[in-house]
Amino acid sequence: MNVVVQNIERADPEVIAGLAECGVATVHEAQGRIGLMAAHMRPIWPGARVAASAVTVSVPPCDNWMIHVAVEQMKAGDIMVVAPTSPSDAGYFGDLLAGSVMARGGAGLVIDAGVRDIRDLTEMGFPVWSKCVSAQGTVKETLGSVNVPVVCAGAHVEAGDVIVADDDGVCVVKRADAAEVLKKARARIAAEGEKREKLNAGVLGLDLYKMRERLAEKGLKYV
Amino acid sequence: MNVVVQNIERADPEVIAGLAECGVATVHEAQGRIGLMAAHMRPIWPGARVAASAVTVSVPPCDNWMIHVAVEQMKAGDIMVVAPTSPSDAGYFGDLLAGSVMARGGAGLVIDAGVRDIRDLTEMGFPVWSKCVSAQGTVKETLGSVNVPVVCAGAHVEAGDVIVADDDGVCVVKRADAAEVLKKARARIAAEGEKREKLNAGVLGLDLYKMRERLAEKGLKYV
Amino acid sequence: MNVVVQNIERADPEVIAGLAECGVATVHEAQGRIGLMAAHMRPIWPGARVAASAVTVSVPPCDNWMIHVAVEQMKAGDIMVVAPTSPSDAGYFGDLLAGSVMARGGAGLVIDAGVRDIRDLTEMGFPVWSKCVSAQGTVKETLGSVNVPVVCAGAHVEAGDVIVADDDGVCVVKRADAAEVLKKARARIAAEGEKREKLNAGVLGLDLYKMRERLAEKGLKYV
Amino acid sequence: MNVVVQNIERADPEVIAGLAECGVATVHEAQGRIGLMAAHMRPIWPGARVAASAVTVSVPPCDNWMIHVAVEQMKAGDIMVVAPTSPSDAGYFGDLLAGSVMARGGAGLVIDAGVRDIRDLTEMGFPVWSKCVSAQGTVKETLGSVNVPVVCAGAHVEAGDVIVADDDGVCVVKRADAAEVLKKARARIAAEGEKREKLNAGVLGLDLYKMRERLAEKGLKYV
Amino acid sequence: MNVVVQNIERADPEVIAGLAECGVATVHEAQGRIGLMAAHMRPIWPGARVAASAVTVSVPPCDNWMIHVAVEQMKAGDIMVVAPTSPSDAGYFGDLLAGSVMARGGAGLVIDAGVRDIRDLTEMGFPVWSKCVSAQGTVKETLGSVNVPVVCAGAHVEAGDVIVADDDGVCVVKRADAAEVLKKARARIAAEGEKREKLNAGVLGLDLYKMRERLAEKGLKYV
Amino acid sequence: MNVVVQNIERADPEVIAGLAECGVATVHEAQGRIGLMAAHMRPIWPGARVAASAVTVSVPPCDNWMIHVAVEQMKAGDIMVVAPTSPSDAGYFGDLLAGSVMARGGAGLVIDAGVRDIRDLTEMGFPVWSKCVSAQGTVKETLGSVNVPVVCAGAHVEAGDVIVADDDGVCVVKRADAAEVLKKARARIAAEGEKREKLNAGVLGLDLYKMRERLAEKGLKYV
Repeated sequence: MNVVVQNIERADPEVIAGLAECGVATVHEAQGRIGLMAAHMRPIWPGARVAASAVTVSVPPCDNWMIHVAVEQMKAGDIMVVAPTSPSDAGYFGDLLAGSVMARGGAGLVIDAGVRDIRDLTEMGFPVWSKCVSAQGTVKETLGSVNVPVVCAGAHVEAGDVIVADDDGVCVVKRADAAEVLKKARARIAAEGEKREKLNAGVLGLDLYKMRERLAEKGLKYV
Repeated sequence: MNVVVQNIERADPEVIAGLAECGVATVHEAQGRIGLMAAHMRPIWPGARVAASAVTVSVPPCDNWMIHVAVEQMKAGDIMVVAPTSPSDAGYFGDLLAGSVMARGGAGLVIDAGVRDIRDLTEMGFPVWSKCVSAQGTVKETLGSVNVPVVCAGAHVEAGDVIVADDDGVCVVKRADAAEVLKKARARIAAEGEKREKLNAGVLGLDLYKMRERLAEKGLKYV
Repeated sequence: MNVVVQNIERADPEVIAGLAECGVATVHEAQGRIGLMAAHMRPIWPGARVAASAVTVSVPPCDNWMIHVAVEQMKAGDIMVVAPTSPSDAGYFGDLLAGSVMARGGAGLVIDAGVRDIRDLTEMGFPVWSKCVSAQGTVKETLGSVNVPVVCAGAHVEAGDVIVADDDGVCVVKRADAAEVLKKARARIAAEGEKREKLNAGVLGLDLYKMRERLAEKGLKYV
Repeated sequence: MNVVVQNIERADPEVIAGLAECGVATVHEAQGRIGLMAAHMRPIWPGARVAASAVTVSVPPCDNWMIHVAVEQMKAGDIMVVAPTSPSDAGYFGDLLAGSVMARGGAGLVIDAGVRDIRDLTEMGFPVWSKCVSAQGTVKETLGSVNVPVVCAGAHVEAGDVIVADDDGVCVVKRADAAEVLKKARARIAAEGEKREKLNAGVLGLDLYKMRERLAEKGLKYV
Repeated sequence: MNVVVQNIERADPEVIAGLAECGVATVHEAQGRIGLMAAHMRPIWPGARVAASAVTVSVPPCDNWMIHVAVEQMKAGDIMVVAPTSPSDAGYFGDLLAGSVMARGGAGLVIDAGVRDIRDLTEMGFPVWSKCVSAQGTVKETLGSVNVPVVCAGAHVEAGDVIVADDDGVCVVKRADAAEVLKKARARIAAEGEKREKLNAGVLGLDLYKMRERLAEKGLKYV
Repeated sequence: MNVVVQNIERADPEVIAGLAECGVATVHEAQGRIGLMAAHMRPIWPGARVAASAVTVSVPPCDNWMIHVAVEQMKAGDIMVVAPTSPSDAGYFGDLLAGSVMARGGAGLVIDAGVRDIRDLTEMGFPVWSKCVSAQGTVKETLGSVNVPVVCAGAHVEAGDVIVADDDGVCVVKRADAAEVLKKARARIAAEGEKREKLNAGVLGLDLYKMRERLAEKGLKYV
């Protein structure tokens, strides 16, 4: 029942790097508005911007044992995605674990629970998206699993899926879709560049997107 | 039923500028502790300090169509105040809309829902007070109204009311009361200056406000 | 019923200073994971790091009268700990009170309610841990008590207990236990230093903490 | 600033009675999906179903003095609508006040705060929609106003507006619109009767509402 | 992208009936404490107890169009499981839809959003587990999908999975595991029967489960 | 550190019985509005009304081992009061434990976490006040303590304190104050009886409590 899946497939590193540049909002739109984690997932320091392959960790509430197990499964460019099996505000993760993850080239942490040592994690430049900050420690008594599918903050994540995270939150891109999503995200950015220029120059969205007629048809009245 | 009110009255620009200097806490006190939006309305970056005339937008949940309509109604010194007709965490507003608002001289956004493109909005210096941050996109299918009275984060706002917002939150000043409220707010600041000096010098509030006698009457015991 | 206890005992200032250096997460662990306030207690600006003796204030909801009474009871190195008798989001405390507390050498504020004048408090370098930010004023009508035991954000606090607070939250150390807790906290830090070095060098927690055998006994499978 | 408006206009009693029969969901739809209070407003006992004229009460947080003032303004068929000026969970209202309201023919209470004496209120058959249940008492120190416009649980209410409330929540109908809304609500019920019969007989909504073509146009695929 | 999967596999009806008898708490334990939906999923009336095959519906926020599509896919013994793609409190479902579902032999509704017509649904004996009650209507503008995997209230659900729901909440059993889980659940119930008898007769859990020695080993002191 | 205190003092059973009759709201007022647990503590079935001596249990998050230990410490007329050391929604308690508590004459459960087997507990007539309902199981790995002081839902509770609980919530009466509080509560009920009669007969609170003059002094205007 409790397993560690050791060999997982990851997306192409260039595709992952491309998704990081696009950012959460664009990627989420590009893949049809799916895969977004809940809005309570916030960065512990502003400005972090990451895309990385998910090493998933299913943990019991208030027990961080499996996080130690999961570190060993991380490779450079991976991000740890931790999902408790029932809601927990405990502080599963701190600066020692962050150092261990960084030593393996890990890119950060996404956790639907608490973290601690915020000052240290910030100084280390270790990016975390979490539900809350809490110094409350956890135990090491009960097994969980690594690299099995999890639900994290309302999103389904499989090992090797691409996690895109920035100040807007966290979005999951299915590994098999990553290249296609990147293509659509880049197309979106290209299209937006032109629009942005016009909007910044004072052209109205009403005209740019040709909305006036449909608004009138729907019955909007100007008084 | 769905209308855009085009000609709204605004308060005197000098009065508005004065209210910005006074800040939310002082203005709220000066007008008798009314008009404060709920405490969940937080700035997306610290330090913004704005007073501006409200262009109100009543939007359906998860539908930002009317925001495009509202941009056209904004003049220099206006702020957009967006209130969904039922609760929504969606990301109604991002950097493209912000550019469009700035092109018209708009002063910012107050929205009882989510925003996205936080990094861009911060770099643009575009101030936003919102319920949350969310990359979740919205649709453009259902009408709402512009410049009608709305309830935003528990406060009643009419088009042309003055919105005062800073790190303490968001407060609404009725347009017709703005000059009078400014007068009272300035009087309050003047009175506070003297008090601040004394308190900083070590005079106790107990003495400055002559509280000791009334406390004793109410029965407070020192042991 | 409503009392102000005037002479309270405090912990040794050197012990208090030592606890500040250790920080919340370490202190909380060192004393057996007790005394942590709820995770909703957040600093109004990042980076503050304080340990100080609690001057406790039991206040009615939406009434800050007793805070003025409590200021007089503060000595250099004290921190005010304010607990409403029923939940309140009101803004009990602002820059004038902060100036008054600083004039007495007070170290900051912990309040399970709201504060206001965030910009000013930040500029003054006055540290606050609070439930929320709110400009909503309070009245001065009903008595409470000073330096009686209170429950603040889920933690029991007695006057003279040591409050340790930083970016991770707020932890209460019983006055009588402070020296012993400091000793354990320092031992913990010493032990962690060596571990940190190894983890940063790439040694796995699995090996450092000798977890592999127990994991296997519990039935963890690698696949 | 603090006023009691004594003579308020009310809607036609027959219209009010008609709205009660229609219920919240139908009335809310009939008036274009406006006026619904937040979903946290729940009945303290199931099955209550009321429509009545609003006597509005703006109260300070944790202070129920004005409720006593408001009772005098109630006539048979009125319902009290209480809105604190800042959030409060306190128990503003209990069995004594309910007896007083019933003695005047009052129809119940809507309050965006707490109530107490739930067992007694239930036995008395006194309907209440509230944010929470709380035994926490309130003070009688600060004035508010009666029969001024208030924002209650996100809805704007003016004295004399019709409050419709049942197990689905609470909806506000503007006094001037009440007759028209009733007409639309009854039309809706008539139309629904026929639809209900067909749906209960197994006709699909897809066919009854002729949705298949538009779904196909939008691109829905059956696989 | 938007699909309706028409032919789904379901678990053995006898197994499903067996799981209903076991109830949520037992089934959840029997399958290793996985699959439980979040605690905010509550029944709209007490006493309902259901096990049924999931017809999953992925819906946009505040848009119930796909629910009409999903009804056609329901067979006798199915339950509809509705998951918005972003959080919504809207009232997606009422008595007309319930009648339509009942006409097809449907067993109820699980929805991570709001429902309305509570009185009618209760009288009809139609069981619903929902996040909230809300009369707020939804639109029919945007497609979603039917019988695709969804995350509902934190649990991953695939079409044909068995939903077990009662006063304790909602639990998802993977279709392929249903028979095995039932076996374990029944074994658990058998074992519990004997224990219950002893506990009710006054035997202590400490003795029944032989806990005293391990407690002493861990260091528990009786004083 | 982890202890079970075996001999606790309890209040006079007649006093306890008297407090049960008075109910939460009256007792809370009688003792000066202290000791009320947070409003999230709700009964799992309506109508329960209990007063009993607290057997306190400090439990780790998601670990119910100490509850088994605590059962042995219960005597007839005791109620178990369970407080996790950090927030937990898990289901710590179900029908087996309830049977065990009832076998010892225990009066019920107060828990700032979840319970399960709601249907069974209701049929058994076992009263519970809890934060939530959840089927999520707990582990038996980490010690806690029994009959030590705890903070439960914001209230400080010592072993042997009297817990009063009904549909209005839960209130804690210090053991040493119980007789005095009962006296005051009864006086309050006596005084209320007369008032109730007058209010029910139509006398206004404004007149009964002689409020008109003070309202006028404070500046209330009738318009």
